[in-house]
Amino acid sequence: MNGNLGGSVKALVFDVFGTVVDWRGSIIRELEALGRAKGIAADWPGFADAWRGGYQPAMQRVRSGELPWTRIDDLHRLILDELLAERGVADLSEAETDHLNRAWHRLDPWPDAVAGLGRLKRRFIIGTLSNGNMALLVDLAKHGGLPWDVVLSAELAHHYKPDPEAYRLAPDLLGLAPSEVMLVAAHPRDLAAAAGEGLRTGYVPRPLEWGPGATPHAVSRGSFDVVAADFNELAERLGA
Amino acid sequence: MNGNLGGSVKALVFDVFGTVVDWRGSIIRELEALGRAKGIAADWPGFADAWRGGYQPAMQRVRSGELPWTRIDDLHRLILDELLAERGVADLSEAETDHLNRAWHRLDPWPDAVAGLGRLKRRFIIGTLSNGNMALLVDLAKHGGLPWDVVLSAELAHHYKPDPEAYRLAPDLLGLAPSEVMLVAAHPRDLAAAAGEGLRTGYVPRPLEWGPGATPHAVSRGSFDVVAADFNELAERLGA
Repeated sequence: MNGNLGGSVKALVFDVFGTVVDWRGSIIRELEALGRAKGIAADWPGFADAWRGGYQPAMQRVRSGELPWTRIDDLHRLILDELLAERGVADLSEAETDHLNRAWHRLDPWPDAVAGLGRLKRRFIIGTLSNGNMALLVDLAKHGGLPWDVVLSAELAHHYKPDPEAYRLAPDLLGLAPSEVMLVAAHPRDLAAAAGEGLRTGYVPRPLEWGPGATPHAVSRGSFDVVAADFNELAERLGA
Repeated sequence: MNGNLGGSVKALVFDVFGTVVDWRGSIIRELEALGRAKGIAADWPGFADAWRGGYQPAMQRVRSGELPWTRIDDLHRLILDELLAERGVADLSEAETDHLNRAWHRLDPWPDAVAGLGRLKRRFIIGTLSNGNMALLVDLAKHGGLPWDVVLSAELAHHYKPDPEAYRLAPDLLGLAPSEVMLVAAHPRDLAAAAGEGLRTGYVPRPLEWGPGATPHAVSRGSFDVVAADFNELAERLGA
């Protein structure tokens, strides 16, 4: 099956937060550095998890129409302002708060990501398909050396994944049939929604996304077109 | 001025047809190869010029509302079908006609383009800002090894350049002020419209765009923020 798949799939689009980049490790490092610089002690891993934890509810406020279309940068800032107040981290300037908010533009790739993408790029069109806004995704690529052929964002559809419009964007803009596009993600829910729009699915679990103590997703591996431990193995399996 | 410019400009977005790629030489080569394969004699340079000549009027039909939003791929095909009929080139199959139409996805870069872009990419975000559709631009980048950080197309605005909406797209999606974005183009009209939206302008004349016999644009070089003979000189002037 995987050999055939490598033949019919023309583009791979990647979820980014957690799949390509280690948001948690990167955000914790930035928070700890800020804490040291400002002499603030706090539970920074807990702060990072709460920041990310506010992300789905914030997107839901957009999806429900409570908020108009709002970029992830601005949703991150809404959540951050609440967390800073709630946790008593009060003495940051606007410039410091903005810099901290833009830590999401400076997330480091997982160790296998750049090499695996470089290999996949030789055979496939490779791009993002992320809820991150375009500017954030471009900055992440510059920061981490991610060799995308194309940066696609839910921002272009004004619909966050898992809304169907966000997935339709990729075949539509790439001029491909949905079955010629594979979403690669560490999140079964994202992949299931992509499959619902006719895309192929590549599951790359990232068991450390929520840190060493987190419980991995319970997943039936047979639900996906391909499963790989990392991007190098994905290249192997897709014949790249 | 150029030194300051290099400091305040964060992203360079490039017109593509004629500025980055030699559409005319590439299209003539594809037409000649088809002619040889099919035993058809014709004025292929004239055919190429007429094909490209149909491009502005076709976009005008979209701009005026006579046609709904229509991608360049489909406008190219409309013009091609008329030309094939008009010039009596009749015995092409649908597959051959489609392959010919997609010659616009296989245009070769000007000789300086890849090296110059590679150098500019180290200092700036580099991207397209083209009337070509996304799929076409992604294919061109794969074909020619163009190292874009981001592919932006008029398709994302549903407005063709020189409509203002097409230029506003770049700072908007990159999260930058218009003055932090420079349009690089071989066409004064494109640059003037970009300047009207507050973008910086880089003029790179391509005197061979319409072939060795064509008359170059009459241009006042003082109208642009920077003028360079090719992308290597542009990198030099912008301190990259």
